[in-house]
Amino acid sequence: MIGIGVDAGGTFIKLLAATESGETIELKQIPTLSQDGPKAFTEKICAVVKDWQKQFKGEKLAVGIGVAGDTDPQKGVIRYSPNLSKWRNVAVSGPITEATGLHCVLENDANMAAWGAYDYELKRKYPNVLAVTMGTGVGGGLVINGVLYHGATGCAGEIGHVNVVPQGELCHCGDRGCIEAYAGHYAIVRRAEQALMRAPEKSILKKLTANTQISGELLAQAADEGDPIALEIWRETGSYLGRGLADICLVLNPDAIVLTGGVSMAHKHFMPAIVEAFSLRQITTPFKHVKVVAAHTSNLGSIGAALLALESAKTSK
Amino acid sequence: MIGIGVDAGGTFIKLLAATESGETIELKQIPTLSQDGPKAFTEKICAVVKDWQKQFKGEKLAVGIGVAGDTDPQKGVIRYSPNLSKWRNVAVSGPITEATGLHCVLENDANMAAWGAYDYELKRKYPNVLAVTMGTGVGGGLVINGVLYHGATGCAGEIGHVNVVPQGELCHCGDRGCIEAYAGHYAIVRRAEQALMRAPEKSILKKLTANTQISGELLAQAADEGDPIALEIWRETGSYLGRGLADICLVLNPDAIVLTGGVSMAHKHFMPAIVEAFSLRQITTPFKHVKVVAAHTSNLGSIGAALLALESAKTSK
Repeated sequence: MIGIGVDAGGTFIKLLAATESGETIELKQIPTLSQDGPKAFTEKICAVVKDWQKQFKGEKLAVGIGVAGDTDPQKGVIRYSPNLSKWRNVAVSGPITEATGLHCVLENDANMAAWGAYDYELKRKYPNVLAVTMGTGVGGGLVINGVLYHGATGCAGEIGHVNVVPQGELCHCGDRGCIEAYAGHYAIVRRAEQALMRAPEKSILKKLTANTQISGELLAQAADEGDPIALEIWRETGSYLGRGLADICLVLNPDAIVLTGGVSMAHKHFMPAIVEAFSLRQITTPFKHVKVVAAHTSNLGSIGAALLALESAKTSK
Repeated sequence: MIGIGVDAGGTFIKLLAATESGETIELKQIPTLSQDGPKAFTEKICAVVKDWQKQFKGEKLAVGIGVAGDTDPQKGVIRYSPNLSKWRNVAVSGPITEATGLHCVLENDANMAAWGAYDYELKRKYPNVLAVTMGTGVGGGLVINGVLYHGATGCAGEIGHVNVVPQGELCHCGDRGCIEAYAGHYAIVRRAEQALMRAPEKSILKKLTANTQISGELLAQAADEGDPIALEIWRETGSYLGRGLADICLVLNPDAIVLTGGVSMAHKHFMPAIVEAFSLRQITTPFKHVKVVAAHTSNLGSIGAALLALESAKTSK
């Protein structure tokens, strides 16, 4: 069987075809253009899927689609997606199955990343896995006892808005002190901008950002080159994230936490602070066991989507 | 079938026999005397079980045992129990099965309460349930997708040590600012003692505690009678607990939270503050759905133990 994984972001739709072991055999990226509406969106995905159906004639295929936002996996419906022109109640799985004849699953993109972390990154070695998606915001997904866990209303794993500082920094959600308000890309950039004001003129960070806006990537580069301001911002990021993850470890007692998404690329600069935050807790059992790693795979969301489609096609028979 | 549920505390062992629907048909309490050692402990439990075997001759029985502390449910071993003379690695299920011929399960008492909450209190209506045990300390147990969830090392659900105030009040675990450091019985009493010092002589709370030590029960009585200090302490308790539970709702998205244990009896005085803490969050989905209730049953731990024994006997066939 071959899984087709789709990661539908606000700007691009990334599609890949993968084997049952998660090996990528085809890769395609097309512009999302969600302003053209849901019908154009599903048709565009179907066009690629149909091409691959021809290409892999004789193979059984299944499709998995991950989108940012609130989804109803049982109905295959996007309840609300801020990134896709604020669509509400858009059926996705149904139209795709109708057009292609293929089994199709829809999930929140963090859930797809969680499945990718469990199935591909960790090869199903650990039954209880938390994936943390570190992009503009901080999201998460959970695999519990080897099954993707949705919770009561499909928003389980949404760790970005766990509070780490009462009345702390302002978060995009409107609250204060959430994990995301410290470890989301915008929050890291916000702290970096503030730090830049007091940075010495000859600092690496100041030079790197002289003609361009500061970004997580530049901040990581500055840290790579030993800039103390950049290093401190990453340490803080790890410290706040670690504080929140420590609470989650007490509740979930997971086997593994997999960090993924763009910001996780700088893991070497913030991982030690996560480990330190864990070591500060007096209760030690969950922290001795849990494995915290940064994903090696950059497209864990679409690989997870492909593999979850295969899993779902098998178990729904 | 009849389930025998055992709640082994530091002072008393409470045993009950219950039908499959959780109706209690026998009840017995014996002193624990853990200083006599594990052998005397299991023999004492077996003596009652054997009596009930005679009494319910012809019925199939199964035994469930809940203890405070760290257990290995798979092996039926108490890894460590502070309340039972600090026992380490004491086999319980094996000796009981050997002596009685009955299927026997062992769990942390909060896990037994969680099963009781899911199976008895909520009649299996909700697949994802968090039980919060409010006694001297604050513990918890989780049922996920209708199955008791242990986590990687058996300590899942230990919500008492989730941080709600960085560098806050001292907790029994040695950390600062844990939920337990605000909502554990000792923490409530600690705040009440401090408040008593500044309380007017004619206050209800001062009168109630004139010749006796303050307790959660007296504090509840004072609140029942409208004492403003007592009411404020309960409000604070709910506010801190609610703050922690809100974070847990974001991660777990549970269907229901069931508060149990002695302190939960005062729920009418602290529940509004939990609801308020939930309403303060900007993300609303998990909070709209979750049902937060205080258990109606005072012995949810032993009923849960009896019912989990029956569940386990059925599924292990």
